[in-house]
Amino acid sequence: MSVRFGLLGAGRIGKVHARAVTGDPGASLVAVADAVPAAAQAIADQYGCAVRTVEAILAAGDIDAVVICTPTDTHADLIERFARAGKAVFCEKPIDLSLDRVKACLKVVRETRATLMVGFNRRFDPHFRAVRAEIDKGTIGAVEMVTITSRDPGPPPMDYIARSGGIFRDMTIHDFDMARFLLGEDVATVTATASVLVDPAIGKAGDFDSVNVILTTASGRQCVITNSRRATYGYDQRIEVHGSRGAVSAENQRPVSIEVATSAGYTRPPLHDFFMTRYTEAYAAEIAAFIATLSGGGPASPSGEDGLAALLLADCAVKSVAEGRTVRVSELA
Amino acid sequence: MSVRFGLLGAGRIGKVHARAVTGDPGASLVAVADAVPAAAQAIADQYGCAVRTVEAILAAGDIDAVVICTPTDTHADLIERFARAGKAVFCEKPIDLSLDRVKACLKVVRETRATLMVGFNRRFDPHFRAVRAEIDKGTIGAVEMVTITSRDPGPPPMDYIARSGGIFRDMTIHDFDMARFLLGEDVATVTATASVLVDPAIGKAGDFDSVNVILTTASGRQCVITNSRRATYGYDQRIEVHGSRGAVSAENQRPVSIEVATSAGYTRPPLHDFFMTRYTEAYAAEIAAFIATLSGGGPASPSGEDGLAALLLADCAVKSVAEGRTVRVSELA
Amino acid sequence: MSVRFGLLGAGRIGKVHARAVTGDPGASLVAVADAVPAAAQAIADQYGCAVRTVEAILAAGDIDAVVICTPTDTHADLIERFARAGKAVFCEKPIDLSLDRVKACLKVVRETRATLMVGFNRRFDPHFRAVRAEIDKGTIGAVEMVTITSRDPGPPPMDYIARSGGIFRDMTIHDFDMARFLLGEDVATVTATASVLVDPAIGKAGDFDSVNVILTTASGRQCVITNSRRATYGYDQRIEVHGSRGAVSAENQRPVSIEVATSAGYTRPPLHDFFMTRYTEAYAAEIAAFIATLSGGGPASPSGEDGLAALLLADCAVKSVAEGRTVRVSELA
Amino acid sequence: MSVRFGLLGAGRIGKVHARAVTGDPGASLVAVADAVPAAAQAIADQYGCAVRTVEAILAAGDIDAVVICTPTDTHADLIERFARAGKAVFCEKPIDLSLDRVKACLKVVRETRATLMVGFNRRFDPHFRAVRAEIDKGTIGAVEMVTITSRDPGPPPMDYIARSGGIFRDMTIHDFDMARFLLGEDVATVTATASVLVDPAIGKAGDFDSVNVILTTASGRQCVITNSRRATYGYDQRIEVHGSRGAVSAENQRPVSIEVATSAGYTRPPLHDFFMTRYTEAYAAEIAAFIATLSGGGPASPSGEDGLAALLLADCAVKSVAEGRTVRVSELA
Repeated sequence: MSVRFGLLGAGRIGKVHARAVTGDPGASLVAVADAVPAAAQAIADQYGCAVRTVEAILAAGDIDAVVICTPTDTHADLIERFARAGKAVFCEKPIDLSLDRVKACLKVVRETRATLMVGFNRRFDPHFRAVRAEIDKGTIGAVEMVTITSRDPGPPPMDYIARSGGIFRDMTIHDFDMARFLLGEDVATVTATASVLVDPAIGKAGDFDSVNVILTTASGRQCVITNSRRATYGYDQRIEVHGSRGAVSAENQRPVSIEVATSAGYTRPPLHDFFMTRYTEAYAAEIAAFIATLSGGGPASPSGEDGLAALLLADCAVKSVAEGRTVRVSELA
Repeated sequence: MSVRFGLLGAGRIGKVHARAVTGDPGASLVAVADAVPAAAQAIADQYGCAVRTVEAILAAGDIDAVVICTPTDTHADLIERFARAGKAVFCEKPIDLSLDRVKACLKVVRETRATLMVGFNRRFDPHFRAVRAEIDKGTIGAVEMVTITSRDPGPPPMDYIARSGGIFRDMTIHDFDMARFLLGEDVATVTATASVLVDPAIGKAGDFDSVNVILTTASGRQCVITNSRRATYGYDQRIEVHGSRGAVSAENQRPVSIEVATSAGYTRPPLHDFFMTRYTEAYAAEIAAFIATLSGGGPASPSGEDGLAALLLADCAVKSVAEGRTVRVSELA
Repeated sequence: MSVRFGLLGAGRIGKVHARAVTGDPGASLVAVADAVPAAAQAIADQYGCAVRTVEAILAAGDIDAVVICTPTDTHADLIERFARAGKAVFCEKPIDLSLDRVKACLKVVRETRATLMVGFNRRFDPHFRAVRAEIDKGTIGAVEMVTITSRDPGPPPMDYIARSGGIFRDMTIHDFDMARFLLGEDVATVTATASVLVDPAIGKAGDFDSVNVILTTASGRQCVITNSRRATYGYDQRIEVHGSRGAVSAENQRPVSIEVATSAGYTRPPLHDFFMTRYTEAYAAEIAAFIATLSGGGPASPSGEDGLAALLLADCAVKSVAEGRTVRVSELA
Repeated sequence: MSVRFGLLGAGRIGKVHARAVTGDPGASLVAVADAVPAAAQAIADQYGCAVRTVEAILAAGDIDAVVICTPTDTHADLIERFARAGKAVFCEKPIDLSLDRVKACLKVVRETRATLMVGFNRRFDPHFRAVRAEIDKGTIGAVEMVTITSRDPGPPPMDYIARSGGIFRDMTIHDFDMARFLLGEDVATVTATASVLVDPAIGKAGDFDSVNVILTTASGRQCVITNSRRATYGYDQRIEVHGSRGAVSAENQRPVSIEVATSAGYTRPPLHDFFMTRYTEAYAAEIAAFIATLSGGGPASPSGEDGLAALLLADCAVKSVAEGRTVRVSELA
């Protein structure tokens, strides 16, 4: 009853998912495809799977599901093709950078009744899941205010920035999804500020590197998101949720947790310096959740609609900065 | 060369300042005045000073400076009268809830060349001062983003809410001053959201109990302030400052710092539950700074202008919430 | 009903107690005596009390109690004289460095029914008291194992070492008392190791600077004490108590609790660098407890017998090191 | 050039090593043997290796190295047989519970020039390794005092206790090895105390459940080890090393690091509750180190001699408790 996988894209994140699939007792990796043959071959060699073309995987009778790790601008097309081919699809975020394109894609998914799960991996981080579990248990009462901090160790290459869709759609989108995961109520308004403090080249490319966003819900719940493309001390990833009866928070993670005490004070090492080491457990857990879904474990979550909703908030944030005002989500939905 | 003090107002905060003045080797408490004679007498008994009327203190030849701890609506008048009488004035925040009234009062202070210091006590908290010292030393490089969290253990009485001027002028004003203390650049815009989550009666009184504010400066520095009138775990007072080379933060303080470990986990006691115990050292240090100023230690800081600037940001926040948009400080200045 | 105090000894610790006495609403400082007239006068000037001789204080009708802060070798004599004069006595530790001398002194105290409290100030540290309170509440079940860490920032001057009675009687004695405060059962055996790692001159003086001690009780409870005369990061004072249902610990205290994060990691400032700043609250609280005792608040604690018991453990430790074996307390008692 | 492995013993720890071997790109698992055929088959099924007898593995031409995870009383025999067969050996601790038997076994290892590595996994914990790395870098100067805390969540089954060799040889032995790893100098004396506080049945079996040990070196360095068979809050594993210029410590690890704040205080979850989850990374790293050794990466470490040295300290501790005195290691060596 093992789920038989095809992997589309053998890059950095493709390798992470290949390891997760092959390490899961409920799944097997049958084939991998990549525009760069050597990249596909490397994964095939390591895990003993076949190299095939996308078309061959699409037509394969021995493949139940695919993991899409190709460039962003191919995601929506691939989702549609594999949905129509009757395969289950796990797709790295985002589905697309255009709201209209995402909507069209999700229409196909609905019509084909395909299973689609979107790779918001942070929902599967054990610490963040534990935060959510405390909310669900009622430990902190009704959620009132959420604070999400997310700082990258440094900005990505400028060519990445250029095709990223901008910081809100590329980076904050994870936090928009986390906000939705934690707030327990739909976001009603988006208010954002943005500036260029890290690298003027980012500004010249029309993007920002330092942003703050406030989300509110109809009942008045609020969420603050703080993002920066710079954090010299490592990959800064924290959440706090305050409710009527208390608060729950998840602190930063570090690879080594010693402390040195000298006349200069008490020093702990920097945080993880890379999202892949910080979220190692989350990547494995999200694939396990996808496999569980395919094995009858309920609907895929986060779903395509979750992907759409997060992108919508990103578009609202862009508009909020441009117009210097609070944007109601209903204006763009 | 001791500074001889008169104390106006013998309430809760008056007692705190009486202790600070009498405990300072450079000062003495000569007289106290209060509309409630018994309150004044209690302080007089404890510290061996006289009970006098405000008028007598105003006319006294043996008093160099006054500490004003009377109700807010008397502050501006008292400042003007004592400034004209040639006394140095330390006044609890705020000078007044009306921007125009504050401006008029500061005009008198300037004309009389009186010394006026405003009681933004948090600038004197040793932890917050240490944060500022690290900024000044250049440890974190250029300041980029500031996060200020301030949550009260619970809302004040409704009659206090009614005459408080609203949460932005009453509570956030401390954080506006702290933002100015830390940002190193004038605030250019104010964007705020506000809701009622703690007590519907606060909403009926036209106020809010849960707010977020984003401040930006001309160069793009940003500061987020989060306020709530509720925190079951104590008086939540934290700041974080992120710069180009690192970050510096001040964590919460608790009266007792033990930790209990059982099968239920590791538990530390709640935080201070009251601003007076949390800021004990700050209250003493601000009076010491005022005394040092009077003994030739440079200009009073925070000044009347600092009080005006913080109130201006509060007015901008009120306007931002009302109009659902970012407000330029220049609109109200 | 205020307790009227005489202060014997106007040195460093005398000043601390002078401040505590004058700051307590239930006490007043009437007179101070010191072999150095200028030292006594300085306290007299600051607090408005008289300078008197020891004899005058002994004979004074306006003095109920004395605080003894003179050199160690005068303690026992002064206790006896003031006990016979019907005054209550608070004496800094130790009563004497000789077990026999202490026993003789306590005999006088018993015969005169005088009140004697010994200055083991750490029992009054709010954090350590909170640890004890958790034990008393039953939070951790039956006490099983205690760990006490005590490291000085650096060794005292060699002339102090020479008359200190050795590290066990001078430094570890505080930890012996703390062990007795926490174990809830009499100590039955003492096993100690000792070496010279910090300064060879200490070894030449016949003393040690680095020691470990294990105490056991009849039922098998154990306490480990670790002492060093060196800690570059500040005054290291920690306790841990483990019981059948959990553990409770008190961490180190620091004057400023900020954290700086850079590419070098996360750094907090060093600890307090001096016992007087570390134990500021404890010194005030122990005098308040003494005053409360004199005002009918029960027997003095820690008592003279507590002072004797701690010294006995120190003597056992000395013997344990000399003979390389576990020493039963009954051998020396 | 992959190292081809045989696994002896398919129990709990055998599974851990099977996963480590198969997950290492420099190794392959060829065969597994176990007295319980089903246990061996389960591993064979999961990892696609053969089930063989010990004799077949001994004679196999396609196996370079074995991992011995069989019961303790078979270790020495198996080491000798495989050493004579020219296979490299990784053996779980201890080699044997008898000092003489270990010495005889190591003689065979030396004569056959076999590679033998002993499974003191904690040396490979990333946090403890980082502590050692700071010592090696000179961060804390010369090592002076070490503190090792090791508490099990609860006692093992009584039948395990009966054949464990006693707490010093079973549990403390890990800490003896850690002390040797950190002290940087041979241990010269052992002083121990021991009692039964957790379960009287342990005492009836002639063992202890609560012990403290002090080790000293010739130059006076000291190490305190605290062990208990009970810790309600999880698996308590900490080390502190103090040196002439500072200290370095490794704190406890927990599977989830959230914090909940309510009116009851701030609570973090318990620690890991099992040595296998606590030391997951260490188990993988020690096998990787063994593989690296076989691939030319230097001598095996920890070696058989390290295993002998730790057992010797355990025997000294037993003698110290029995005789109530400090035992010189040279007495038993």
